[in-house]
Amino acid sequence: MDRAEFWNEAEALLGARILRTKAECDLHGRSETWFAPTPPEAVVYPESTGELAALTKMCARFGVPMVGWGAGTSLEGHALAVEGGIVVDFARMNRVMEIRPEDRLVRVQPGLTREALNTELRTTGLFFPVDPGANASLGGMAATRASGTTTVRYGSMRDNVAALEVVLADGRVIRTGSGAAKSASGYDLTALMLGSEGTLGLITELTLRLHAQPEAVSSAVCAFDTLEAAVETVQHVMQLGVPMARIEFVDAEIVRVFNKMNGTAMPEKPHLMIEFHGSEAGVAEDSARFGEVVAEMGGADFQWATTTEERNRLWKMRHAAYSSCLAARPGCMGLVTDVCVPMSRLAEAVARGRAMIDAAGLTGPILGHVGDGNFHAILLLDRKDADELARAKSVAHDLAHMALEMGGTITGEHGIGMGKRYMMAEEHGPAWAVMGAIKAALDPQGILNPGKLVPAPGEWP
Amino acid sequence: MDRAEFWNEAEALLGARILRTKAECDLHGRSETWFAPTPPEAVVYPESTGELAALTKMCARFGVPMVGWGAGTSLEGHALAVEGGIVVDFARMNRVMEIRPEDRLVRVQPGLTREALNTELRTTGLFFPVDPGANASLGGMAATRASGTTTVRYGSMRDNVAALEVVLADGRVIRTGSGAAKSASGYDLTALMLGSEGTLGLITELTLRLHAQPEAVSSAVCAFDTLEAAVETVQHVMQLGVPMARIEFVDAEIVRVFNKMNGTAMPEKPHLMIEFHGSEAGVAEDSARFGEVVAEMGGADFQWATTTEERNRLWKMRHAAYSSCLAARPGCMGLVTDVCVPMSRLAEAVARGRAMIDAAGLTGPILGHVGDGNFHAILLLDRKDADELARAKSVAHDLAHMALEMGGTITGEHGIGMGKRYMMAEEHGPAWAVMGAIKAALDPQGILNPGKLVPAPGEWP
Repeated sequence: MDRAEFWNEAEALLGARILRTKAECDLHGRSETWFAPTPPEAVVYPESTGELAALTKMCARFGVPMVGWGAGTSLEGHALAVEGGIVVDFARMNRVMEIRPEDRLVRVQPGLTREALNTELRTTGLFFPVDPGANASLGGMAATRASGTTTVRYGSMRDNVAALEVVLADGRVIRTGSGAAKSASGYDLTALMLGSEGTLGLITELTLRLHAQPEAVSSAVCAFDTLEAAVETVQHVMQLGVPMARIEFVDAEIVRVFNKMNGTAMPEKPHLMIEFHGSEAGVAEDSARFGEVVAEMGGADFQWATTTEERNRLWKMRHAAYSSCLAARPGCMGLVTDVCVPMSRLAEAVARGRAMIDAAGLTGPILGHVGDGNFHAILLLDRKDADELARAKSVAHDLAHMALEMGGTITGEHGIGMGKRYMMAEEHGPAWAVMGAIKAALDPQGILNPGKLVPAPGEWP
Repeated sequence: MDRAEFWNEAEALLGARILRTKAECDLHGRSETWFAPTPPEAVVYPESTGELAALTKMCARFGVPMVGWGAGTSLEGHALAVEGGIVVDFARMNRVMEIRPEDRLVRVQPGLTREALNTELRTTGLFFPVDPGANASLGGMAATRASGTTTVRYGSMRDNVAALEVVLADGRVIRTGSGAAKSASGYDLTALMLGSEGTLGLITELTLRLHAQPEAVSSAVCAFDTLEAAVETVQHVMQLGVPMARIEFVDAEIVRVFNKMNGTAMPEKPHLMIEFHGSEAGVAEDSARFGEVVAEMGGADFQWATTTEERNRLWKMRHAAYSSCLAARPGCMGLVTDVCVPMSRLAEAVARGRAMIDAAGLTGPILGHVGDGNFHAILLLDRKDADELARAKSVAHDLAHMALEMGGTITGEHGIGMGKRYMMAEEHGPAWAVMGAIKAALDPQGILNPGKLVPAPGEWP
């Protein structure tokens, strides 16, 4: 159908909140990693579910692709409009709708960022725990089933989203889930939408589970001579059932970047960064048990961050690891791997990853949410060196393949997007076709985030 | 197509493991509650995934309905073959396939019961926590997204199933999930299958998450003058973030049944039954904080079960509540309600439930997993009194309707099956049609557990 007619109708609906300028489209055509820019035809800023539903009906009628956009922090090109159409930027749907302290629930719009939410919650005694590092939008985190540093204790978006409102490909609006702590009422459409990366619907509201701000918090870093010793320490502590709120691994290269960019003087060795949440007595007990394992494993240079400021500095440094690595090598770009393996294979996986990166002649510091068996290599690449990019992609593939051989997954938390779609058949076998069948049932025209996650029609027998 | 030809082919495949005797079919045509018996045409006992896949292809070719059967403990008629066809009894697929202590995973066949699994795990230091009371099969628990007394601490089947093997309606076999602690790889088909009640596929293998057997366990009962005081105590303790492993409410009527059937001498008042898991110090701290709230709320008659035997007796009594209530009124049957509401509405919901039951002139003790906002009324009915059954159904409907008004769900853990299908549109609105579209995409002939959960073709606009 006539695209010009579509623009007329869309402008009648949205007025100044549909933008087709080059600057605006370019801004929404970039990602945080190596994918080539692909600007959309327009960017829209809906202000309500009803408005987005009306727009979606229009897009369905004209066959115009729609791609959701939160904070643009995806590392797999999820929000790139690779088949044209419009990007739906949720920046104007970013309100906290309702805080329900007694039920430990909060209802928010998808454009709200996790940091803005936690700022709003500060005085309630509650917080939202899922922490992917980046100040992502909550809608984007839901759409990618995000997790992060606190998942070892509080779970991922899968565990912390109670209910959703979603606009479907035909403009119908559905609500999934409820305000109850659990339910056995029919298919778990909330879980189906989480991680569907905007291919089944556009999330317009989220009901999130909150947690009590811990009475006591205790953070520390400690150094190890080898990455194996650090990772095996985590395996031992997990076996003991010591409840860690965060347990992060950073290798010696990351520590060098920390020292350079933050003025710290950490020994240039692999480190664990740990945090405990609980009562004063509980945290003390957990810390002591952790310290015993560290001592047995030859860990040293224990430094406790006792004040809130020190703790914030520690985790800010960890969260900025990606941007710090990029900044430490000016002009480079990053390709970040994201495998997740069973805990028993973690030390081996990290060591093999290190060897693969070295063998390929790449710079690639390793860090990870090791309590989940999830780690990243930040492959640092010269923007102009096509051969280096090719070698990095090859290492990323080999790492993902290794994770599958070990019974793990090609992505712990960054999702599929564009970068890993070609490996879906390898991970899921005929279950990928099932994903395709669900997609075809809910979005038969394929207007929602085309080119991502699911097989294209005919791509799978 | 010709059903006689189907039986010939099925018998060639299964030999003596397909049974069409009246006794066998009658045995698989009954449920634990008030539904009229509906014997299937045959019962089959597959021994492997390959065999079940071959049978499923045959059923697809002949259009023969297939209904999974675990331990037959469903309270909503899930396993009744209401449109004929065959019941697939998983009794011969009941093995523990692999225990992986380092990954805290176990791979099992669907016919294994949760008690048999925990017996196998006894010496490993690990256990599987989901505990619906009945000694259900793990496949059935997965298919109904079961939960129970320990869900407040350890989660439901939704949280404790890492991966599945499933035979689809066309006989294809898929694997969902992985051995990793988390994944962002595509649609969450594991979650979609959990709670799908055998309408999307038949589960042939489960990978379950295990937990460390707690170092210390402490259980107690305590009495309250009113049900409101008991339930509000739970609300307060939840607010404080005290980690309870179990927190169960039983009303005075249940206590009377306990005393009669178990020879206990508990005061005939509402009680809470509580359990803490953790380190010795942690459990002591949690117990003390719980005790303080109980004292503030006027709770009394605290009795701690200090030995393993006392604890087992306590929870066995709780788990046998349904059968004890039935036994206490010989010749009766039960209709068990199962609403789940946001925590802030729980005391009001239980009180209104009590009033509804009394106003209808019914006998209906109330108990519940109050830490989840989930409670049951066991409506005890004369098998021959049609009016009493009608009043009970009416109360069950009103309770479910109230739960929806409060932002909760019509079923916390028993599922939809036959009993609550008619309320799906009320709970889910257009999202029920989405469930129907997914069903139609994966089982276009509707041979998997027809008549359950999803809308029939044409039933939803």
